[in-house]
Amino acid sequence: MSRADRFLKACRRETVDVTPVWLMRQAGRYMPAYRRLKERYAFLDMVKTPDIATEITLQPVDAFNVDAAIVFQDILPILEPMGLKLEYVGGSGPVIHNPVRTPADVECLAVHPAVEAMDFATAAIRQVRRALDGSVPLIGFSGAPFTLVCYAVEGGASRDYRHAKSLMYGQPETWRRLMEKMSMAVGDYLQAQAAAGAQALQLFDSWAGALSPADYEAYVLPHTRHAIEMVTNTCDVPLIHFGTGTSGMLPLLKRAGGHVIGVDWRIELDEAWNRLGAEVAVQGNLDPTVLFAPVPVIESQAARILDSVRGRPGHIFNLGHGILQHTPVEHVSALVDFVHGYG
Amino acid sequence: MSRADRFLKACRRETVDVTPVWLMRQAGRYMPAYRRLKERYAFLDMVKTPDIATEITLQPVDAFNVDAAIVFQDILPILEPMGLKLEYVGGSGPVIHNPVRTPADVECLAVHPAVEAMDFATAAIRQVRRALDGSVPLIGFSGAPFTLVCYAVEGGASRDYRHAKSLMYGQPETWRRLMEKMSMAVGDYLQAQAAAGAQALQLFDSWAGALSPADYEAYVLPHTRHAIEMVTNTCDVPLIHFGTGTSGMLPLLKRAGGHVIGVDWRIELDEAWNRLGAEVAVQGNLDPTVLFAPVPVIESQAARILDSVRGRPGHIFNLGHGILQHTPVEHVSALVDFVHGYG
Repeated sequence: MSRADRFLKACRRETVDVTPVWLMRQAGRYMPAYRRLKERYAFLDMVKTPDIATEITLQPVDAFNVDAAIVFQDILPILEPMGLKLEYVGGSGPVIHNPVRTPADVECLAVHPAVEAMDFATAAIRQVRRALDGSVPLIGFSGAPFTLVCYAVEGGASRDYRHAKSLMYGQPETWRRLMEKMSMAVGDYLQAQAAAGAQALQLFDSWAGALSPADYEAYVLPHTRHAIEMVTNTCDVPLIHFGTGTSGMLPLLKRAGGHVIGVDWRIELDEAWNRLGAEVAVQGNLDPTVLFAPVPVIESQAARILDSVRGRPGHIFNLGHGILQHTPVEHVSALVDFVHGYG
Repeated sequence: MSRADRFLKACRRETVDVTPVWLMRQAGRYMPAYRRLKERYAFLDMVKTPDIATEITLQPVDAFNVDAAIVFQDILPILEPMGLKLEYVGGSGPVIHNPVRTPADVECLAVHPAVEAMDFATAAIRQVRRALDGSVPLIGFSGAPFTLVCYAVEGGASRDYRHAKSLMYGQPETWRRLMEKMSMAVGDYLQAQAAAGAQALQLFDSWAGALSPADYEAYVLPHTRHAIEMVTNTCDVPLIHFGTGTSGMLPLLKRAGGHVIGVDWRIELDEAWNRLGAEVAVQGNLDPTVLFAPVPVIESQAARILDSVRGRPGHIFNLGHGILQHTPVEHVSALVDFVHGYG
């Protein structure tokens, strides 16, 4: 078995020779090759230029023995064709200059042209597929409806999601309409990525853990499920459903859908899998800061995870969230090789 | 039964007439009376002046029908007599100008004079007790060793605790020594608060949820337990052990100690209590942003929590984390009255 099919087999819970491994945000700032490009181009220009996105996507595939590529892209550009004015302000992260706060704002959001405007993303997927030439499978991705709606309502990152939750609690019909539109845009976008050649898809609900289980179930789950079903009903690719801070509501994430559930490091992976049940594969769940530790510590932490789910087909090794800036590149290499060599 | 003893009885899992309620950070910026004082004094001056701290402590007790007072104080000043240079920089939160990074830094930290320098805190407790005159019990508190160590090592707030965790993984003996010193300072400080008249104590491990369960168990639990045992072995007051992001490791928090475990909103409260077991009381767990919702939503969310643990003695109603700035005061009042009137 080679890295051409290990990852996809594990997504389907088939037996594999060694545990497949890739790392969220594996194409990014911790890599010197990425930083060199970043000196020359603005972030959104890199995202929107398929040649550059392709080059960045391939950097970690060339540098490490990872079992999957994930297209270099960002979760927020889909908000632009929906009508939001997105800007990356150096140092302080993304800003949306016209946040969604009222029923009229929600009505103005465009859904169906959104995916057509994302042709830079689908073009990059086609180009990466050609470049990879079957060596490793390619993952496409989107932000999940809730995480995207939080950005759209808050106008950027947030500590407490006060505006988003105030809309959710105070104007439930407006919230429902907003989530409905976002889930359609996300579903369309994921379908387009699969059609362009993405062999697996990941939905990032990075902020799901801001919610209580009851609120997730009432205000988010039906819309996430809608987006996921738009894909799984029409495309034959595995879907990874990832969230952070979800230890108290993993069965709800599973109910929302996905062939693989991505788990952060705040719960033991075997305990998470027990709560999820055997009908899904799992991805995770090393704390990204462990990569700053000495290599023997990295190895013992990875071994602990691998041991805890040994013998259960359907584990994809990954971090519990995106790789951090300043992560030592040689530690990434050591981790990937250790996972492949273990057991 | 009156609000004089409801809270303490619930801490001991005794039957009460109605569920007691107080709110973390109930003395703070959302209250106009607090903001008027804040215009005249710097934050650390307010914390260090017992007359002002007393006035602020009493504000929510006078304004709402809460069942406990919590002394107005901050978790970080204890770091100053240990040798750290703490400053509150307007808008951007606390900064420690000489963060702890090396074995020599750890050796320089002073433990035992620390509690003596905190006489402003014990003086405020004595003064508040006199002013309350038995109307409601008074809670003292401290940051937990891990949360304080994170501030000390990072030099302020952090997104990923990279420096703290790098020290933890890379220099385990230095980490152990640092946590040992911090746990002694915390234990001393809590003992001093009980001696001054605090009738319950809360340990805030707000950042425990940054850790995997295995890392919490290996690097934090023994030290938190040490601090807690210093108090529970010598003082006859209930101790509330609070953390956020702990849904995946509640039994470990219980093992570290505390008569009451504080739970955030990321797990259903009854599920949390089932994982903890009946030998502890629980405190929580309304999402603080719910207080921005219309009153009927606040009431239905509170009812859901109360219903889920109905008939189990030992529930103290609270938020899942501190009350947020801009929270409408009249919503706080409505919540407190609803909890008392429910059922």
